[in-house]
Amino acid sequence: MRKLDWIAVDGGSARWRVWGMAGLHVLHQAQGDQTVRTLAPEDLEPVVMTLVEGWLPEGHTIPLLACGSIATHAGREKAAYRTVPCKPLGGAFINVPSRDPRLSIQVIPGLQQTRPADVTHGEETLIAGFLAQNPGWDGVLCLPGAQSKWVHLSAGEVVSFQTFLTGEMFALLSQHSELRHAVADGDAAWDSAGFTDGLTQGLDRPEWLLARLFSIRAEGLLAGLEPARARARLSGLLIGAEIAGAKPYWLGQRVAVVGESGLGELYAQALRRLSVPVSTHDAAGMALAGLVAARLLRTSLPSEPLA
Amino acid sequence: MRKLDWIAVDGGSARWRVWGMAGLHVLHQAQGDQTVRTLAPEDLEPVVMTLVEGWLPEGHTIPLLACGSIATHAGREKAAYRTVPCKPLGGAFINVPSRDPRLSIQVIPGLQQTRPADVTHGEETLIAGFLAQNPGWDGVLCLPGAQSKWVHLSAGEVVSFQTFLTGEMFALLSQHSELRHAVADGDAAWDSAGFTDGLTQGLDRPEWLLARLFSIRAEGLLAGLEPARARARLSGLLIGAEIAGAKPYWLGQRVAVVGESGLGELYAQALRRLSVPVSTHDAAGMALAGLVAARLLRTSLPSEPLA
Repeated sequence: MRKLDWIAVDGGSARWRVWGMAGLHVLHQAQGDQTVRTLAPEDLEPVVMTLVEGWLPEGHTIPLLACGSIATHAGREKAAYRTVPCKPLGGAFINVPSRDPRLSIQVIPGLQQTRPADVTHGEETLIAGFLAQNPGWDGVLCLPGAQSKWVHLSAGEVVSFQTFLTGEMFALLSQHSELRHAVADGDAAWDSAGFTDGLTQGLDRPEWLLARLFSIRAEGLLAGLEPARARARLSGLLIGAEIAGAKPYWLGQRVAVVGESGLGELYAQALRRLSVPVSTHDAAGMALAGLVAARLLRTSLPSEPLA
Repeated sequence: MRKLDWIAVDGGSARWRVWGMAGLHVLHQAQGDQTVRTLAPEDLEPVVMTLVEGWLPEGHTIPLLACGSIATHAGREKAAYRTVPCKPLGGAFINVPSRDPRLSIQVIPGLQQTRPADVTHGEETLIAGFLAQNPGWDGVLCLPGAQSKWVHLSAGEVVSFQTFLTGEMFALLSQHSELRHAVADGDAAWDSAGFTDGLTQGLDRPEWLLARLFSIRAEGLLAGLEPARARARLSGLLIGAEIAGAKPYWLGQRVAVVGESGLGELYAQALRRLSVPVSTHDAAGMALAGLVAARLLRTSLPSEPLA
């Protein structure tokens, strides 16, 4: 019978996931309800512990390897970053002190880029997972999400990348702005026509974003714009503006979209309209593939304390 | 001694203001702490009442004339709007039932535009106040704020207008997004160099807005970007993107910026860089001037109940 010998944590996305591992095999998995972003630093370890405590054998220290914004949110504004161009994984892991002796916590360092200034918080691991599943792949990765990333990959290295605040903007606008009166919540049926409308506006005139946003509210008041349509329009508008802005990335390239299935398909749809050769890949599993790849590197890597 | 004969309310902006009037003379004034936006419809009248109750004579019904989003926030999603092109004031006021017999409440209708869909909620009254103080003025008005408006005025009429969600976006991003970790709060000293940096980025590449936003966070993490500088940069970036998008309004026109003093000056600074002839006008007082202009129209106007 296989025994737990390490724990993998994807703490970079809105919801975070935890796997109990025996080598390359998944013994257990769990998902945290709370987002990492809203956790107080001192609550991180206790929250991880509620998820994994039942898996831990008595009297052992189990290595826990995490990726994502967990390092910065653990109160380390200045986490260690590796500078591109470089492979997505490499260098030393970051040791995070744990209060419970049953866990030994390490975090995979993010990537940094100097100009324009940019950082990854977990995406480097997703990229490594993608490369593990698609060895030798060259081109551009699009990782849609709260902080969408466009990544230029060549010869197994991240050459450059660019983050767009698209998903976070969507959440803020639909939940907290004046637009919330016009926009349906996430349970509403998806309205493809609304998405296409917004996408066209965003792609054609990204510089009108701030104006087009208010039009959604105004059409709700004046023209009875359906809230479900308004929601899809908002999504299309923001994704369109992102893709228009990301033109230096996709122009003349092939693009692999790695996202949650629904969201990834929306990006792929937009890129196809621009005649960009595009493939879609489900993000589920890629974070774990990246964590496994990092774990496999581990034995040959020194582990040093974070200064 | 002058006696209170009407009450003027500017309920369209973040903070709202109330004046006790005798004809054209201000007898009293007060300011509401709570924003209209966050009030429940049923709380509007009680909150107004706490401000004005001390002014009300016994046994009389005092007319109260309000402008702003108070009508939509009184639970009337579909307030009456007047369609541009038209004068900023005119038509019937909207009667709002009041529970207290000492007040008779009316609201000035906003303006609507069909394509692109847009509405005013109080800005029509500000425009009327500006025209009362600058009779015969033709050109473009810029009204910066939570929902900035650009207005084409000709021969005393609003020809067209366009709203940008700039101020609201600034508030959301600086308080509720990932950027809140990088950006100082409103008490920080103003950083002109940061504003200029952001303005340049926003004006030159408005289509990169979603990417430039994240750069603020990344430079905070990587390059020690000062929070006060980050705040001014964010402001410049959004204002620059707005002004770039508003080019069809200001190109070849003279622009009057009507805003709270500090904010108006920032817009004027940006427009001067683009060689746009610009004048600045303090918004304080213009809402009251518009409410007075509306009151003067009133005797010749029918008042009809809101369907």
